[in-house]
Amino acid sequence: MKTTVSPDIAASPGVPAPTASGLAPGCAVPLGVTWDGSGVNIAVVAPGAEAVDFCLFDADGRETRHRLPERDGGVWHGYLAGVRPGQRYGLRAHGPYDPERGQRYNPAKLLVDPYTRSVAGTLRTDPAIYGFGGGDPYGFEPDPRDSAPFVPRCVVTGPGRAQRGSAGTRESGFGDPGIGDPGSGSGGLTGHGVHPADNRPTIPWSDTIIYEAHVRGLTKRHPDLPPRLRGTYAGLGHPSVLAHLRRLGVTAIELLPVHTSVSEPALLERGKINYWAYNTLAFFAPHAGYAATDDPIGEFQAMVAALHAVGIEVILDVVYNHSAEGSERGPTLSLRGLDNTTYYRVEPMDPRRYRDVTGCGNTLNTSSPHVVRLICDSLRYWVTEMGVDGFRFDLATALARNPDAFDPAASLLTAIHADPILATVKLIAEPWDVGWGGYQVGGFPAPWAEWNGRFRDTVRDVWNRYTSGVADLGYRVSGSSDLFEHGGRRPWASINFVTAHDGFPLADLVSYNEKHNEDNGEGNRDGEADNRSANHGMEGATDDPAILAIRRRVRRGLITTLLLSTGVPMLLAGDEFGRSQGGNNNAYCQDNAVSWLDWPTDLVGPEDVTGPEGVTGPEGVTGPEDVTGPEGVTGPEDVAEPDHAYPDPAGPDPALCRLVGGLAALRSAEPVLRRGRFFHGGQSAPGRLADITWFRADGAVMSVADWNAPQVETLVAHVAGSPVAGSPVDEDPAGGRGTHDLPAHGAGLVYVFHPDRGDTVVTLPGAPWAARHDLLLNTADDDLAGFPATVAVPGTSYVGGESLTVLGHSVLVLRAHPPGTAASPRCGDP
Amino acid sequence: MKTTVSPDIAASPGVPAPTASGLAPGCAVPLGVTWDGSGVNIAVVAPGAEAVDFCLFDADGRETRHRLPERDGGVWHGYLAGVRPGQRYGLRAHGPYDPERGQRYNPAKLLVDPYTRSVAGTLRTDPAIYGFGGGDPYGFEPDPRDSAPFVPRCVVTGPGRAQRGSAGTRESGFGDPGIGDPGSGSGGLTGHGVHPADNRPTIPWSDTIIYEAHVRGLTKRHPDLPPRLRGTYAGLGHPSVLAHLRRLGVTAIELLPVHTSVSEPALLERGKINYWAYNTLAFFAPHAGYAATDDPIGEFQAMVAALHAVGIEVILDVVYNHSAEGSERGPTLSLRGLDNTTYYRVEPMDPRRYRDVTGCGNTLNTSSPHVVRLICDSLRYWVTEMGVDGFRFDLATALARNPDAFDPAASLLTAIHADPILATVKLIAEPWDVGWGGYQVGGFPAPWAEWNGRFRDTVRDVWNRYTSGVADLGYRVSGSSDLFEHGGRRPWASINFVTAHDGFPLADLVSYNEKHNEDNGEGNRDGEADNRSANHGMEGATDDPAILAIRRRVRRGLITTLLLSTGVPMLLAGDEFGRSQGGNNNAYCQDNAVSWLDWPTDLVGPEDVTGPEGVTGPEGVTGPEDVTGPEGVTGPEDVAEPDHAYPDPAGPDPALCRLVGGLAALRSAEPVLRRGRFFHGGQSAPGRLADITWFRADGAVMSVADWNAPQVETLVAHVAGSPVAGSPVDEDPAGGRGTHDLPAHGAGLVYVFHPDRGDTVVTLPGAPWAARHDLLLNTADDDLAGFPATVAVPGTSYVGGESLTVLGHSVLVLRAHPPGTAASPRCGDP
Repeated sequence: MKTTVSPDIAASPGVPAPTASGLAPGCAVPLGVTWDGSGVNIAVVAPGAEAVDFCLFDADGRETRHRLPERDGGVWHGYLAGVRPGQRYGLRAHGPYDPERGQRYNPAKLLVDPYTRSVAGTLRTDPAIYGFGGGDPYGFEPDPRDSAPFVPRCVVTGPGRAQRGSAGTRESGFGDPGIGDPGSGSGGLTGHGVHPADNRPTIPWSDTIIYEAHVRGLTKRHPDLPPRLRGTYAGLGHPSVLAHLRRLGVTAIELLPVHTSVSEPALLERGKINYWAYNTLAFFAPHAGYAATDDPIGEFQAMVAALHAVGIEVILDVVYNHSAEGSERGPTLSLRGLDNTTYYRVEPMDPRRYRDVTGCGNTLNTSSPHVVRLICDSLRYWVTEMGVDGFRFDLATALARNPDAFDPAASLLTAIHADPILATVKLIAEPWDVGWGGYQVGGFPAPWAEWNGRFRDTVRDVWNRYTSGVADLGYRVSGSSDLFEHGGRRPWASINFVTAHDGFPLADLVSYNEKHNEDNGEGNRDGEADNRSANHGMEGATDDPAILAIRRRVRRGLITTLLLSTGVPMLLAGDEFGRSQGGNNNAYCQDNAVSWLDWPTDLVGPEDVTGPEGVTGPEGVTGPEDVTGPEGVTGPEDVAEPDHAYPDPAGPDPALCRLVGGLAALRSAEPVLRRGRFFHGGQSAPGRLADITWFRADGAVMSVADWNAPQVETLVAHVAGSPVAGSPVDEDPAGGRGTHDLPAHGAGLVYVFHPDRGDTVVTLPGAPWAARHDLLLNTADDDLAGFPATVAVPGTSYVGGESLTVLGHSVLVLRAHPPGTAASPRCGDP
Repeated sequence: MKTTVSPDIAASPGVPAPTASGLAPGCAVPLGVTWDGSGVNIAVVAPGAEAVDFCLFDADGRETRHRLPERDGGVWHGYLAGVRPGQRYGLRAHGPYDPERGQRYNPAKLLVDPYTRSVAGTLRTDPAIYGFGGGDPYGFEPDPRDSAPFVPRCVVTGPGRAQRGSAGTRESGFGDPGIGDPGSGSGGLTGHGVHPADNRPTIPWSDTIIYEAHVRGLTKRHPDLPPRLRGTYAGLGHPSVLAHLRRLGVTAIELLPVHTSVSEPALLERGKINYWAYNTLAFFAPHAGYAATDDPIGEFQAMVAALHAVGIEVILDVVYNHSAEGSERGPTLSLRGLDNTTYYRVEPMDPRRYRDVTGCGNTLNTSSPHVVRLICDSLRYWVTEMGVDGFRFDLATALARNPDAFDPAASLLTAIHADPILATVKLIAEPWDVGWGGYQVGGFPAPWAEWNGRFRDTVRDVWNRYTSGVADLGYRVSGSSDLFEHGGRRPWASINFVTAHDGFPLADLVSYNEKHNEDNGEGNRDGEADNRSANHGMEGATDDPAILAIRRRVRRGLITTLLLSTGVPMLLAGDEFGRSQGGNNNAYCQDNAVSWLDWPTDLVGPEDVTGPEGVTGPEGVTGPEDVTGPEGVTGPEDVAEPDHAYPDPAGPDPALCRLVGGLAALRSAEPVLRRGRFFHGGQSAPGRLADITWFRADGAVMSVADWNAPQVETLVAHVAGSPVAGSPVDEDPAGGRGTHDLPAHGAGLVYVFHPDRGDTVVTLPGAPWAARHDLLLNTADDDLAGFPATVAVPGTSYVGGESLTVLGHSVLVLRAHPPGTAASPRCGDP
């Protein structure tokens, strides 16, 4: 027989009984703990609770508990005078412990306020962190031990920008106080005197190039940075880093999760941490472990402002599909203790268990209006208070199940769609999860963009395995209209990528057939088995010059295909200088040189940092050398330093960074590379060229049979440079907001993709497409023949219809001048 | 065989061909037409359209069409320089006319921008307003005639408050320009120099008393108002009206729809109009027909600011469940022409037809994220720009069908829940529609309040028909916990009412057995048949003093029950001075003295207008005497004046207003009348009284059998005045936000409800409930025995346990002093 147990906090040794509540009723909005200058309003969503306690901790760790006096709907609330920013607190919730009904209340567990803006300390493994008693998460007994000694504390923060009014009405401008007194600003960092929400670059989707990076890994080994800034928000905003990003030509940095996270207890017990940090504990608090100062909020804001100042947007990878509490066997840290079934999806027929479509033990219940509100409030906070410019939603299918099947009109997506603040930022879905029907590439509604996993798979197959068909490559290169051209979506719905944090970096992708994840401690059982990678003759490092030559060409082919393709390219940080993980394709727990970027000496230094036109150059974010680290933060710094970084297994390619930067510059110069409309093909005639035409190597326009060939040997594409006649919406080749004023010009581009091993002869298109071709790029040239200077002053020209030899594993880009147009380089035109 | 026809606008005589588009791409946000000082951005949701034209009209009515050049997702957009506020415009959309697929594009029809802030002109009946050809809405042919001569125009407006920044950053402060140049302000009205969003009274739900009124009907016959202001926004803000509302003690005025509406063509053809105006054409534009000036926006804002200044909130009755386009047989005016299936629910098996759960021909498709966004944007606009404080959602069940059954987590409700602006205003559902499973009283989630139709039915039954059981009356009087006490909802979830715009006014409710709707022109077939009314001896007007005496007592009993009951009372304007509709219980088309309030001479005049403490009294809104009416507005003014108003069929009751005002004052003085917690009953003991105790007339505590008696003869209730011991949340008798500081005192209240015809003897509760009772109110006293002065200084006292005679059809209210407390009146206490 089942017993419903409502554990009494008094039964927990060491936990004080609740004080007589001195709280006023307060308000049910806003949620969280809000300081008003003389005290705090506390509002917590816990619909199933019988009582909620607001627990204050003094400097000696002594706890004082105040019961929230009011309840309205599912919101418990109260007001406590005298509490100031910097105050440590937590929550405890009373209610039934009845796993069979999905209720797991346990006031012995100190809970993190889901709305806290700041978290101090981290999780330590101890049996007391679990809510279930007797080691049995399916049993009827809660665990009576107080978890407070082992879990983080929330911290009361000062007023946000919204409460204070806009920065313009405030004398001091930037420097939003996070913890401590107003005016403590960004903790001593040199800011820009501007709030990051006030200097957004506002890059159109059409112009966007994303650079995916980990805050810690990007600079942990950056030699230009003072040691205290390495691996921090302040380090990311350092002039040397900004200079590199500007040289690459990227327009947005997409950060792996920066929400406060904790590592899974099982991982901690193995002596590792969750370095990637897709394990969020607090959706509003910047992770304190990445802060060089004791003010993560101000430091994060200063970082964003510094990036904005050089024209780079900030996109956050956000993990709202699950939380750090894991499965029913995990610790009770926050949401589980506030209202298990409101916040998580439980199995309807056995509410003791979670419905896990994330592979992470739980799934947030986005069918609940309370959870939708939590997520929307969090998103708005990062936009308005922290200044970020967009989000990449991890396992986004899990957010749009209604309740089981994916629904593009699911309530969370609808609430985001209806929000005027979120309507202004970039929204990117990782369009899959691990549940039934989870693969939804192309299934999200406008205005969402999506990680195009199909692009990754096809382009890897083309270059590494020679197994992709012509049509598949053609669709990927031209914007994946087969996936995204519905409902009025635009080509920028496709986030094209070849590599990302998850899987092989680019160097390993061309150097390993198999994953080598032994260091993760799971016997190489973890990580994706299907990598579409190739070692091209030998697994891993080699000094065989023939193998290295192939790897170099294939790598260049992959990254060139990425940056030529219609859609939004995303680069993985470090790929541009040959970062390797030594064959590890799942380095989530490698907080060491396996993951950290090993900056080549020729790429460091702050030279040539100029902002985009009209944007004032940055002063850069520099930090104090001797700032004390955040109190109570353990974790990353405590892990043993790694012994070495893996050298580039594809061999050093000093031109690789130049290739990336040059292709970015080419995208910037050529509107057809940033098309806002999908291609529609068609017949060409003199003076009226189809927007895209596909050719065989012999110069003939492809037939249907050619297009459906099962393997790509050589694919030649001509894209027209002039505006295409047709409907009004097609008259703008760029198609982006604000890019309409780009001059159209007569010259088009020709791409020659030749992933095949052998050299081949390619006949270039003649009339009506081209009278003359200027070679801009041949990726087979060891030194890249002066690229990207060739964009402005081409070195080699060919007559339309002329044949040339194309080396194996290479890409050519040519400018095609149609008959009747001047053959002089476009950049020399007036 | 079916044909898909895409009508060419060139085929329509008189409609110019599109000009070469000079539009820049513009932005997809914000939606609507937005002036930026040098031109307008146009953004229109029309996912299924092939093209959308922005059509400008000059002063001579000549049309210039500009095709929108861009599309992103379902949003068509463009930017046109040089357009200024005041410009008249409309939209035309091109796409398939294919009713079998639910597509009804017809560019011959000029469409209203769903986001327009201002509408000029109104609808005229003509065959050209219909989109379907050959008189057949189910056929395959569109109608080619241009509708422009017969439909209203949108008007470009100046920047809103959000675009300008807050009022504090603007020198001129209040006076948001609507139409015309910035600075035209409220069109000559004397404002308060304050924006209505800046002087909100912010009344807690617990203190709220609502007064339902029609903008036009409230003042159309008000003798104190200059004739030009009668029936207008400015008139509603007149000091004489404000004085009456203050005297009544109401805290919110709930306005019948003020969104721009048009009358149904069938009604216009009968020479009538839709006076109630539950037939919205434009969800952002205040109805111009209610404006005394040519600036409806500024005039509306000034009205709200004036009400706020005397401490009265403004709640709008909003109709998002259907639109003015009616069924598939209705005219094509806006949404139908932009995207029929996005905006409306169509029958899945026959998309030619609408799924109509509103009884109004169509149902807005709130399953579409675009529609959710439209509604949320509209709501936010009325809060932030127009300053209103809450909404009453007409037929709200229709808004929460997902897609067929009611779902409290439906995406619209969730999006509203997740919105930080909408979280701060009052949300009231009319919790039913006419579809399957539509009756959902009690089914809405917190923080929604609901019209408690059960309260209306029960209280009418009790007083008019003697057919309600004791328990039912007990639940209604004590907050309807049976309906609303779930999910942490509070008693203010129940909006209690006896009468509303729909149905008999209070005078008719006690004077007519049957409806008398002949004047509506439908042979008395329209209107509700089940009115739970009674004529008490003779149908309608009578001079029989016995009948009039009963009607007077019953009316007093009804309104006293309403104002004593836990929950939020709602009064119908005019009931306090005996307004009659002559037995018409569906006066929606009676724009005449049947509907307009006939103000008694003793209630007019601006004396005694003082704001609540801390609020500066109003200057009042006065208007120019000779302002020219808005151009092109026809409708209300053109309808023939009525010959007379119906006199009060229950006989004049000069004390009735005083009864209402006195009961409002009693609610204000007695926290137990504004309880924030539901009653839970229980056993009483000396010094520890149950929160509520029910007694029989003989003074015995009710048994279960008494409670379940099928008919109420006499019901006596004692409510405890002191805080009730128990959980912390019960310690606040008022329970409202911000009302915690009200002093608790020892005295409780005793209500004696005696709806029965005959006189009876009632024994008052003795110990432990009361040692002494002070009589505050006996509704059977003709002159009400000095009420409400008796609240402060009671005239009659009784000993606990004493018996007294209670006359038929009456209510008594007594203050009950428990043993050991002082018997002196509370208001005399220090």
